[in-house]
Amino acid sequence: MHDCHREIAASLTALGAEVRIDAAGNLRGFYAGAESKAPRLLLGSHLDTVPNAGAFDGVLGVVLAVALLEALDGRQLPYGIEIVGFSEEEGVRFGTPFIGSRALTGRLDKELLSRKDLRGISVRNAIEEFGLNPQEIPLAALGDDILGYVEFHIEQGPVLEALKLPLGVVDAIAGQSRLEFKFVGRANHAGTTPMHLRYDAIAGAAEWITAVEREAHKVPGLVATVGAIEAQPGATNVIAGEARLTLDVRHGLDEVRTRALENIVREAEEIAKRRGLFVRQNILLSQSAVAMDPFLIHEIERAIREAGCEPHHVVSGAGHDAMILAEKVPAAMVFLRTPGGISHDPAESVAIEDVAKAIECGLHLLDRLSSSSTFHKRMCRA
Amino acid sequence: MHDCHREIAASLTALGAEVRIDAAGNLRGFYAGAESKAPRLLLGSHLDTVPNAGAFDGVLGVVLAVALLEALDGRQLPYGIEIVGFSEEEGVRFGTPFIGSRALTGRLDKELLSRKDLRGISVRNAIEEFGLNPQEIPLAALGDDILGYVEFHIEQGPVLEALKLPLGVVDAIAGQSRLEFKFVGRANHAGTTPMHLRYDAIAGAAEWITAVEREAHKVPGLVATVGAIEAQPGATNVIAGEARLTLDVRHGLDEVRTRALENIVREAEEIAKRRGLFVRQNILLSQSAVAMDPFLIHEIERAIREAGCEPHHVVSGAGHDAMILAEKVPAAMVFLRTPGGISHDPAESVAIEDVAKAIECGLHLLDRLSSSSTFHKRMCRA
Repeated sequence: MHDCHREIAASLTALGAEVRIDAAGNLRGFYAGAESKAPRLLLGSHLDTVPNAGAFDGVLGVVLAVALLEALDGRQLPYGIEIVGFSEEEGVRFGTPFIGSRALTGRLDKELLSRKDLRGISVRNAIEEFGLNPQEIPLAALGDDILGYVEFHIEQGPVLEALKLPLGVVDAIAGQSRLEFKFVGRANHAGTTPMHLRYDAIAGAAEWITAVEREAHKVPGLVATVGAIEAQPGATNVIAGEARLTLDVRHGLDEVRTRALENIVREAEEIAKRRGLFVRQNILLSQSAVAMDPFLIHEIERAIREAGCEPHHVVSGAGHDAMILAEKVPAAMVFLRTPGGISHDPAESVAIEDVAKAIECGLHLLDRLSSSSTFHKRMCRA
Repeated sequence: MHDCHREIAASLTALGAEVRIDAAGNLRGFYAGAESKAPRLLLGSHLDTVPNAGAFDGVLGVVLAVALLEALDGRQLPYGIEIVGFSEEEGVRFGTPFIGSRALTGRLDKELLSRKDLRGISVRNAIEEFGLNPQEIPLAALGDDILGYVEFHIEQGPVLEALKLPLGVVDAIAGQSRLEFKFVGRANHAGTTPMHLRYDAIAGAAEWITAVEREAHKVPGLVATVGAIEAQPGATNVIAGEARLTLDVRHGLDEVRTRALENIVREAEEIAKRRGLFVRQNILLSQSAVAMDPFLIHEIERAIREAGCEPHHVVSGAGHDAMILAEKVPAAMVFLRTPGGISHDPAESVAIEDVAKAIECGLHLLDRLSSSSTFHKRMCRA
C-alpha cells in the first residue's frame, strides 16, 4: 500500500495537487479551485481489494479521477477537487468493511479501532505499524466545504454487459437482509421409511428454495439467494433430519425488501407446517438501502449522454464507500461495464474503450457542475 | 462377541442342540430332526449391530429362534433346525456387509478376506485373532440338505406401527440404486447478479429434489431420497456455482426402480438444460431386488393369521442376511413392528406382546411345515 500511495501521489503531485495520507490510511490529493476558498468535490474509490483479486476493483476509480485531473490540463474549476483513495473498503483483514471512508464521516470509533485481525493486531496497531498516528483520525473527517462525492467503479455484475452499455448511473445502494434458516424434520432410514411417513428436512428446504426464487422473479429489482446449504446427518441412505440454509435478499427500496422477506419467511413456515417440520430463522444482517443524490444522478445521466452513451439506471447490489459518504454529503456513482460480470477474480477486466467513455463522461460532469446553477447555490452554501 | 456366543450356546446346548462357531464367526446350533438323516430348516439372524445401537436389531431374531426351540419342549420335527447367529451383517468394520452369511453361500472369497479395517487389520487376520481358522471357511458353506431359511427381524421402519399390526411378511428385499449428482452453474455475486442472469446450482438442485420427491410419491412402493447436499462456494453472498447431491432409490421390482430412476435422471437433465446448468451423475451402487420364497411367504402369512394377527405384506427397504441366503436356498422373513420406526439407536425397542406373537407365529410355522405336503416333497428331494 505504501508503494501504491507513492505511485498515485507522484502522479497527483505532478498535476499540481497537494497530497497527504490521512490517519486512517486514505490517500487525499487536493487540487485547488479557481478561488482560494472554493468548496470541493470529492472524487475517488478504494485502493484495497480482496485476495486473489483482479486489477480494477476500486483502484480504477482512483486512477480515473487522476486521469480527469490530467485531462483538465492545468485548468482550474469554480470548485476544488479532492481525490480520495480509500483504505480498507473490503473488510478482508478486520472483518469490517469501509474503515477508510468511516474516518471521513467521523465514524471510525474506538470500538472499531480495537477490532483485531486473525493475528491479534488491532486496527489501531495496524495504523501505527503503517507509520500513522491514530490520534489524528479526527483530522481525516470531512469539513463543511464538501459539495459532493462521485465514485467511478466497475459494476462487478453482468447487467451493463447484457444491455451492451458501457456506463451506468447508480440510483441507490441496495438494502440487504441476511438470514440463516434451519428446517428440522426427523432423520430416518432411506430404505424402510415410506414417502408418506417422512419428515424430510432436505425436501422441505428444497421446496422453500424454489419458493424463494419464485418470489425474487416476481418482484422487479429484487435479488434473493440461498448460497449455502448443509444437511444432517448427510448420508446417502438416511433421510435428512436437519437442513441449514442461508438467505440473502437485496433491493433498492427497503419496503420492497421487507415485504419480500416477509413473504419468504411465511412460505418457509407454511411449507414446514404442511410437512410436519419445524423451521427457525435468525437475522444476521439488516442494512437499509442508501439513495444516491438526485441532482448528481441527473447530472451524471446527462454527462453519460454527452459522452455518446445511453445511461442505464442501476441499483448497486454491492456496498461501496459512496454508501458511507452519503450519510454526510451528496454522493453518486458511475458504473463501468464489467466483462462477464466477473470481479474479485484474476479474470476481472474492463474494456479500454469503456474507460475512455468514463473519462469523457467525467469531464462532461465536471464541466456541467461548473456551470450548474444548482451546484452554484451549493457552492455558496458551503 | 465371545461372551455373546457363550451365552447363546449355553441356552442351545441346554435344549439339546449341538453348537459350533464356524470359521466365519457364525454361531451354528443344530437341533436334530426325528430321523437321523432329516434335512434341516435354518432359523436365525445376525449378532452384530452398529455403534451406538439398540438392543434388538439382529439379535432378537436369534434369541427368538432359541425361544422356538425351547417352546418345542424336546419335541422333534420331521426336519432338523439349525439356528444361525450371523457375524458381521452390518459391514461397520470392513465396509462390506453380510460377511457371515456369505460364508454360508460360499461367497466369502479371497478378495473379501483381504479387505482391511481402519487399523489395517484384514478380515483374515480378524478371524485368526478371534481364534478361528480362515482355512476352514469352506466348511461353513451350506450342504445340500437345506429346506429353507426363515429370519425374524425388527422392521426398522414405521409401516407396521402406522397400520397397528404386530407382524409383517416380507415379499422381497428391495433393489437399490445409489447415485451422486453434480449440478454445475456459475458462482457469482448475490447482490450484483439479477435473477434472470443467474446460473444458480443450488436453485437447480432444489427444483430437482422436489421432482425426485414427486416421482417417488407417484409410484406405489417406491422410495427415493436425497440425503446429502453440499454447495460450492457455500457463502451467504455468493450464488452457488456447484451443488453435489446423493440419490437413493429403492423398490421391490427392479423394472419399476429402473424406470423411476430414468425419469429422475431425465428430470435432472431437463432442469439443467432449461437453467443453463450442466448436470452429471455417477452410479455408486445398483443392486437387484431379491424375492423371498413364495411357498414360505404363504406359510408365514397363514402362521401369522393363526397367531391372531393380520399379516401385512412388506418389501424390505433395508438389506438382510436373507437376501444373501436366497441365492442358495428358499428364504423368507417375518418383520416385527418397530415403535416409532426407530432403529440403529439406543431408543430402538419392541413390544413384549409383539415378541410373544412372533413366537406364536413361529411355532405355527414350524407345525405347518411339518405337515405340509409341499415341504414334505422338499424334504424328500433334500
